[in-house]
Amino acid sequence: MTKNLRAFLAVIILIAAEPHLFAYTGERADLIVAGGTVVTMNAAAGIIENGAVAIRGERIIAVGTKAEISARYRAARIINATGKVVMPGLINTHTHVPMVLFRGIADDLLLPEWLQKYIFPAEARNVDEQFVRWGTRLGCLEMIRGGTTTYVDMYYFETAIAEETARAGMRAVLGETVLDFPAPDNKTWDAAIDYVETFAKKWKGHALITPAIAPHAPYTVSTEHLKQAHDLAVKNDIPLIIHVAEDSAEIKTIQDKYGASPVAYLAGIGLLDNRTIAAHMVWPTDDDIRTLASREAGVAHCPQSNMKLAAGAAPVPRMLRAGVEVGLGTDGAASNNDLSMWEEMDTAAKLHKLISKDPTVLNAREALEMATIRGARAIHMDKEIGSLEPGKRADLIIVGMNSEHQTPLYNVYSHLVYATKASDVDTVIINGRLIMFNRRVLTVNEVLVRGKANEYRDQVRKSLGLK
Amino acid sequence: MTKNLRAFLAVIILIAAEPHLFAYTGERADLIVAGGTVVTMNAAAGIIENGAVAIRGERIIAVGTKAEISARYRAARIINATGKVVMPGLINTHTHVPMVLFRGIADDLLLPEWLQKYIFPAEARNVDEQFVRWGTRLGCLEMIRGGTTTYVDMYYFETAIAEETARAGMRAVLGETVLDFPAPDNKTWDAAIDYVETFAKKWKGHALITPAIAPHAPYTVSTEHLKQAHDLAVKNDIPLIIHVAEDSAEIKTIQDKYGASPVAYLAGIGLLDNRTIAAHMVWPTDDDIRTLASREAGVAHCPQSNMKLAAGAAPVPRMLRAGVEVGLGTDGAASNNDLSMWEEMDTAAKLHKLISKDPTVLNAREALEMATIRGARAIHMDKEIGSLEPGKRADLIIVGMNSEHQTPLYNVYSHLVYATKASDVDTVIINGRLIMFNRRVLTVNEVLVRGKANEYRDQVRKSLGLK
Repeated sequence: MTKNLRAFLAVIILIAAEPHLFAYTGERADLIVAGGTVVTMNAAAGIIENGAVAIRGERIIAVGTKAEISARYRAARIINATGKVVMPGLINTHTHVPMVLFRGIADDLLLPEWLQKYIFPAEARNVDEQFVRWGTRLGCLEMIRGGTTTYVDMYYFETAIAEETARAGMRAVLGETVLDFPAPDNKTWDAAIDYVETFAKKWKGHALITPAIAPHAPYTVSTEHLKQAHDLAVKNDIPLIIHVAEDSAEIKTIQDKYGASPVAYLAGIGLLDNRTIAAHMVWPTDDDIRTLASREAGVAHCPQSNMKLAAGAAPVPRMLRAGVEVGLGTDGAASNNDLSMWEEMDTAAKLHKLISKDPTVLNAREALEMATIRGARAIHMDKEIGSLEPGKRADLIIVGMNSEHQTPLYNVYSHLVYATKASDVDTVIINGRLIMFNRRVLTVNEVLVRGKANEYRDQVRKSLGLK
Repeated sequence: MTKNLRAFLAVIILIAAEPHLFAYTGERADLIVAGGTVVTMNAAAGIIENGAVAIRGERIIAVGTKAEISARYRAARIINATGKVVMPGLINTHTHVPMVLFRGIADDLLLPEWLQKYIFPAEARNVDEQFVRWGTRLGCLEMIRGGTTTYVDMYYFETAIAEETARAGMRAVLGETVLDFPAPDNKTWDAAIDYVETFAKKWKGHALITPAIAPHAPYTVSTEHLKQAHDLAVKNDIPLIIHVAEDSAEIKTIQDKYGASPVAYLAGIGLLDNRTIAAHMVWPTDDDIRTLASREAGVAHCPQSNMKLAAGAAPVPRMLRAGVEVGLGTDGAASNNDLSMWEEMDTAAKLHKLISKDPTVLNAREALEMATIRGARAIHMDKEIGSLEPGKRADLIIVGMNSEHQTPLYNVYSHLVYATKASDVDTVIINGRLIMFNRRVLTVNEVLVRGKANEYRDQVRKSLGLK
């Protein structure tokens, strides 16, 4: 056989095997992720072996088998996911992202000592707009590398957080914290409310950023101020984020002050509705659980943070059975100490088996739902994100399944929850844009961010008189 | 300045800066790990910044500052650990290593269904010597990549496991399982006892492998056979590994049959002493804890396995206070589903805070001790391993501290327990030999092992009639 004949035959075989590569007909897609196991997290579509996802602009336009998608669409770019899992990006429903700069500053302490000797003075002496920017860059870097595509935040200087998050290409619900004490950014309640108004107006409608208001907790914000925060949320049509029922001390404080559980008290003043994202929810009563379900308030469950601070184990199986939408969150890295949603899934599934004394509770698929579609429902964004479906935002990740700790593979849900690590995430697409490719983050300067984080560490240490 | 002059000056500067590179005097070392933070896990030595460890043959000969070590020793090879942590290799005190080939075969089931529908038939139809060899290769690969240098095993065909473990260059205590039922290797009790006698004689005194006998549990081995197993352990001077007090069903069974708790029963028949490694120990009474301490029996705590199977939370803080030596174990990958000791440390520290309702319980340093020096004591090998000290076996790991999830670094114990992952381990030295360098495992053919594991997966699925 001559060289030319061999080359000709090779081209013919290639065209027969991969016709989409040569198709100049069909509908236009900007990007097709093709091959691999597509885990849709859509109840009807389930798992598609040798599947594909077509993306146009910011949205998914088709999900199906590779054969179907290649027959119908031609794309400017094709990413090969053969041998990997293609799934919705993870949703971290509760964090305080700039606190990565306090990661591991103090652990294993009683809450009052931890807060009063470390966290409060460290924040008072160090948190300014620049600190928040660099913390957000570092936090986004860590979340992107772990396959998180959306996060819900509660901190200060959220305008700066919004700018840095959008720059990193991540999706976020960003709650500016308001409370009855001077904060690093706003020294009075009125100033904070003005800040949120401006913040909400500026970012409302942005493709990536959803501005929100975050009254800190029922024990740090007065009834009058809580109502005012809720009015602002309704007026601007934005979410309201709040810590609720995190530990038994809070339950006692609210019971003593208002004669009700935190949930009953908040429901009574009209604060719980389908725009609420209630973080922690470790100690709801059965009545509280019914209230959360009927008011359609979402819950952010933070199993590792609640364990580490000895807050308790939230009654997640009971909440899920009652129809409460519960997502997973890492909480801030000062108390966890990382932003890996894989570890939260793994811990949630195991913790609730232990607490329920029943190994069938919270199975792998349910844990994965809490990190994706249920998380989306808990933050009231399930029309936009949380599963791979035509019309939704193109937030998806490609996860390698070939590491030694994932070998061999029997069941994909089991492996994603019980064996996969943040380091197995290969590629991240958010809002149709390639954000990480083959573990290289394309939107954050890693070297610069690490160097700056170390500088802040030195500054924080010095500010607390630590060696 | 001429080229020659510049070259001459460069050499002079280099000699001045790094004189050890050019020293032909001083005592001989085979390998020096220099620079970085040396976390000795030795109570007296603590942490040495810009430290070094000198190794000759199979042992550590010196630990000190880099300046001290370079002044005193010249080495054939120097590994630069600047910016990283140098620490003892991790000790996994309980696993069933070949079960990695069943990783994720079935989860989220009640124990009887899990065992009888999946694990027992899968073992009966698939486990032979070749299966065990390939499973051991895969398990060793995963453990090495996660910085585990010693593991304690309990399975069948332990002679094959010993050969493969020694080939992978790992240290292990390998317990051949004996029980009152036919096993994949030995069909009768007498055959099993003969097997262990031969196994013990063959491997006793090996630099890496400690042979052991592993009567499965008090409910699967008769009193007479337990005594016989213990006699064999004493006669051959080998450890005895046994599952004890894992779940409440076992407590009831033993109470009904022998009128005592599992620990009291075993102590009564002379089975608990300073050669015992008791796995799980979820349900000891206060009396049992005193017995374990006075008999000097070691305990292998498996927090993630116990959570996932809803067995319970072992009273680790109480055992530690009573002076029981407690190490950490992953259990087999069929029930966990990985062999990462980093996750066991993190989970142990958080779980016992939750259960004790006290965030000061089991601090980061104590969790790290359980994975190193306390684990060594629990398996009765603390004279040989578990800390970086002259005279001990050269089992050490170099851990990168520069990932985004470890940035910034305030406290090294906190970061090792709460932020570091298996994927951060950079280099592994076992018994003075370089086993992994810059994340490349030098003793196991990864591609071959993964391929073979997938073949076994297909075979196992078929044998169970699974798709």
